[in-house]
Parts: sequence; structure tokens; C-alpha cells
Amino acid sequence: MNIYDVSAKAGVSIATVSRVLNGNPNVSDKTRNRVLEVMDELGYTPNVFARGLGLNTMKTVGIMCSDSSDPYLAHAIYYLERELRANGYDSILCCTGSELVNKRQYFELLLSKRVDAMILAGSKFVEIDSAEDNNYIIEAAADLPVMLVNGYLDAPGIYSTVCDDHDAMYQVAHRLLQSGRRQILYLYTSHSYSGMNKLQGYKDALTAHGMPVRQELIHRCAKDLGEAKELLLSLADSGLTFDAVMTSDDSLAVGALKFAHCRKKSIPEELSIVGYNNSMLSYCTDPEISSVDTKIESLSIITVQSLMKVFGGGQVPGKSVIKADFVQKQTTDL
Amino acid sequence: MNIYDVSAKAGVSIATVSRVLNGNPNVSDKTRNRVLEVMDELGYTPNVFARGLGLNTMKTVGIMCSDSSDPYLAHAIYYLERELRANGYDSILCCTGSELVNKRQYFELLLSKRVDAMILAGSKFVEIDSAEDNNYIIEAAADLPVMLVNGYLDAPGIYSTVCDDHDAMYQVAHRLLQSGRRQILYLYTSHSYSGMNKLQGYKDALTAHGMPVRQELIHRCAKDLGEAKELLLSLADSGLTFDAVMTSDDSLAVGALKFAHCRKKSIPEELSIVGYNNSMLSYCTDPEISSVDTKIESLSIITVQSLMKVFGGGQVPGKSVIKADFVQKQTTDL
Repeated sequence: MNIYDVSAKAGVSIATVSRVLNGNPNVSDKTRNRVLEVMDELGYTPNVFARGLGLNTMKTVGIMCSDSSDPYLAHAIYYLERELRANGYDSILCCTGSELVNKRQYFELLLSKRVDAMILAGSKFVEIDSAEDNNYIIEAAADLPVMLVNGYLDAPGIYSTVCDDHDAMYQVAHRLLQSGRRQILYLYTSHSYSGMNKLQGYKDALTAHGMPVRQELIHRCAKDLGEAKELLLSLADSGLTFDAVMTSDDSLAVGALKFAHCRKKSIPEELSIVGYNNSMLSYCTDPEISSVDTKIESLSIITVQSLMKVFGGGQVPGKSVIKADFVQKQTTDL
Repeated sequence: MNIYDVSAKAGVSIATVSRVLNGNPNVSDKTRNRVLEVMDELGYTPNVFARGLGLNTMKTVGIMCSDSSDPYLAHAIYYLERELRANGYDSILCCTGSELVNKRQYFELLLSKRVDAMILAGSKFVEIDSAEDNNYIIEAAADLPVMLVNGYLDAPGIYSTVCDDHDAMYQVAHRLLQSGRRQILYLYTSHSYSGMNKLQGYKDALTAHGMPVRQELIHRCAKDLGEAKELLLSLADSGLTFDAVMTSDDSLAVGALKFAHCRKKSIPEELSIVGYNNSMLSYCTDPEISSVDTKIESLSIITVQSLMKVFGGGQVPGKSVIKADFVQKQTTDL
């Protein structure tokens, strides 16, 4: 017998059951009575960790990420855990994969553990194409703070810390254009909030330079260096020419570099390459790949600082933005 | 008021206080009485999560690692979390860094959270040079299962799952020697159990081939590709010659490849290079680096399976060993 059974039988969400348990006034009398009735019928007793019973909190925060072995997310988790621990909080980690059904299920599972807050690390948790798929997050945020690291949702109780991806990509494209590049290929992995901002930055820089946005230069690709290399080989074989490659992730830039080696292009003269996230991957290659440092340590620290402020009843903006840095290495001459 | 205060005032370890709380008979009457007396004096009440009170367990396992952003450990955490969740257990993650004092402090902190077991991921938790520094782990294992992923300690309640590093390195050295290499440089990062087994595998293969073990070919280096490159440059400048480089981690192999590019050595003819862990780093380079797949997914799955067997009262060996695979890529011709 648990909160799931109550939620299923009453025909309401976990978050609603949780609100009733917490005495949150934001539930209609009708719904509250229905939930209490079902609890009674099922003989459900809220577990000992329920905050609503006036016990201490668990001092535990749920951290969700799609894949903790991704280099960017691995660093996010490292810094988040360190900062939470420094503030006396444990981190329950949950790697969800990329399927919405799993994200949602794990999210509700962590809620049922009575965590004090949720941190969603990475841009993959907010659906851009189907806004109603984010309702479960918005609903939960009525009961506990939800922190988004590099994602954005505008709703009460949700606090986003994001890198200014639009500006970062705008600056990269602007500098490539200034240095005389005219056919900048753009490779990206995801339609997330972050992914769309990056792409828009690229497009806006072209427009600012009076250049057309050419769809045949914009390609989506799996986050896989082998696939990125093959994609570029087939684009080149189809007659497309390009003198620079901008990517939304270092792994794609590594694939672009393998393409360049394969076709014996001189770098950066014939082909400039720019990665994103400035991960260890961008330092492993010869030449090393110029990349955008998205300040994941700062993002993580600000996220935890904001959360502590929320816990303390302080005012925190719904969105905090930090600037990225372009790190020039050997695949550009900007 | 918490278990720390009791432990400090009674002059006994956290693990001993925990034993008293759990009714573990493995405590002397004198110590038990002293602990109970102090609890009484301090007005300490064991918290609601104490298993000793007969409540359900938290179904939570503590995972400690030195650095979750290391590619090998990031994968270990990903697979451990996934397997634990599939078995209905939460993971509390704790990144300790490499200082013994922090490892020990975080270990006791997690114990005080009443986790059901501890998993120590990576070889860095067992001190080889000073055995008494492992006592805090051995002591805790009297109360709850301690699982070591790629580390080994022989004590009741401690279950190790390790990769056969000795055999893996023996095979690599053996094949390099068979292919005619005679001066194999060995770079390693750590004196851990795993690190020492790897080195011994290299030495034993040399001996089996009737070759001397030459100390000037064996060098310790930080896990940093820049440092590895610089070390090889200075060794070459000092007149040392070598026709192969074996490394205890892919990051060192990437450094060796940068050295080879810098000195324009043909690969693998003039210089063979072998990495370890077969991480993404070994796929980013051109040429891609031959490496040893240490089966971190299998290690993690076996660790969780063993733990579930221990929870169920089953018999589990103190050490489970799995074989590594050599993955030939472009930096060897074996």
C-alpha cells in the first residue's frame, strides 16, 4: 500500500496526493475529500518520512539526469553533489534515459521518497515540441522546489540556471564570419531549450552579417562521433561545400575532425571546427578543438546556492543566466 | 544531537554506536553500557530511520567514488544506479576526492544515514601501503555489506568484484613482445590494488619472455594527458629509447599519442601505444588507441547482483573476478 495506489484509485496525480498529505491549501475540497476517502478505504498510512507529519526533513535532494556517463552531465553531477553535501544535503541520483515515460516515472518515484527538492540536470527534461508533457514538472513544483540546470520552464516553484547559449553561438558564428568563413555547417543533437537557443544564435549571427540561413547547411545528428564523421563524408560527397563546422557538442566536433583528417583538409585554413562544452574530448585530439566553455561548475554552484536561498524563504529569480567563454585552441584562428 | 556526538563523547567509533543501536552482539558489555549511558546523558534518541527500531529499511545504498567525472567512474555510477533502481533501491551518491580523511568522514556520514549497504566504486578506496588505514571499512562491514568495485579487501562482510588486471596487462605485454617490441615503457597513475596488479602483469610477462624488468622504463604519472606527454618528451630527450608504451589509463595513452605526433613517430611501426579502460577518449584520437576493455558494465551488474544475494541471505564469494578484453584499434598491430 503506497502513495501510488492512492493516486491510481482516487484518479489524481501523485502530486495531488502529496499536496493533500502536506495540507497544501491549493487542492479543492472535493479532491481533498476524495483522496482522504481512498486513503481510508485502502487503509493507507502516510510513511514516517512525510514532511507533513512535522518530522524533520530528510535533507535529501533528488538529482535526475538522462545519462550520468555523458561527460557534461558527469561533471554537473559531481559539482551538484559536492555543493549539496557542503550544505548538509544528500543527493539521491537517478539516471532516467531519454524516454519521457521513464523520466516521468522516476520523477514521481523520487517525489514519493519525500525529497526536499528536485534538480533536473541537463536540457533534456523540458519538452519544447509538446508543452503539455512538462505538466508533471509544473505540477510538482507547487509542492517542492524544482531546479533546472541548463533547462528553462516558466512556472511557480521552478528555478532555472542556464548558460547563455544563444550569445555563445552568436559570438562563435560572428567571429567565424569576421575571419572570412562563408559556408558554416551547423551540426546539432537536440531540440531542447538549450539546443534551440544555440541554433538561433547561429542563425541570428548570419542574419546580422547579411548572410542567408541555408537549411542545407543545418543538420541534426546523434551524439556520436562516428555518425558525425559519416554524415560529413556523405554531405561532402553530395557536393556540399563548407569552410567551417559549428557543433552543439564536442563529440560532434571530434567527428568533424575525423572527417577533416580523412579528407586531408588543412585545419583551420581549409576547415575551422568549433566544439561545445569544452570537455576532455576537445583536449584529446590533435589538433585540439576550440570549444565553448559552458561553465558547468558555476551553473551547478549557482543552482545549489539558489536552492538554499529558496529553502531559507529568500527571493530567487525564475531564471539565472551566466555567460559562456570561447576557448580558442588549434582548430580555429579567430 | 546525533550519532556523532554519542560516538565522540563515548570515545568509540560510529560503527560501534551503530552496532549498539542494531543490537549487534559483537560489542562487549562494557562498551555497550558506556554507549547507552552516554545516549542517556545526552538525551539522544535514535532517529526514525534506524533499522534497529524494526521499521522497514530505507532501501537505499550509499555509493562512494573519488571523482564521478572521471570517465571510468562515471560509467560505474551510471550502471550501479541503474541496476540498484531495477532492484528497487535508491542510490545516495558521494564523491569523496582522494584524501583519506575525506573518504573516511563521508563513509561515516553515509553510515549515519542508515544506508542498507555501501558500494565503493573504483580502486582508490583500499590503501595498499598502509593496511591499518582500511580498518574503518573492515569495521563497518561487521554491520552492513560493503561492496568493492575493482578493489579488494579480505574481511567478513566485504565483497569485491574485480577485473583481472594482472592477466589483462600480462596479455598485452606478451603480445607486444611476441610482435618484436623490446623496450616497452610502462606509465601508471596509482599504487592501488588494481594499479599494482597491472604493473605485476607487465613485469611477469617480461620475465616469462626472459627479459629484464628495467626500472628506467617504469614511470608514475598524474592522470593527465598533458603531463604524460611532457614526461615522454623529457624521457626521450634524456636518451631513453622505447618502441611501445603501455599505460594504466586511456588518458596517459592519449598523452603518449600526442608525444608521438610531436616527435613524428609512425604508429604503430615506430611506437605502439596501448590504453586502459577503452573509454571514449581512446576513440577520439586519430589514430584511435588500442585499449583494454575492463567491462565496467559487467562489474557493476555483478556487484549489484551479489549485493541482492547478500540481502537475501545467500552465499556470495569474497571476490568475483571477470576477464578483460583487448580491443585492437590503430595504435598496435598485434
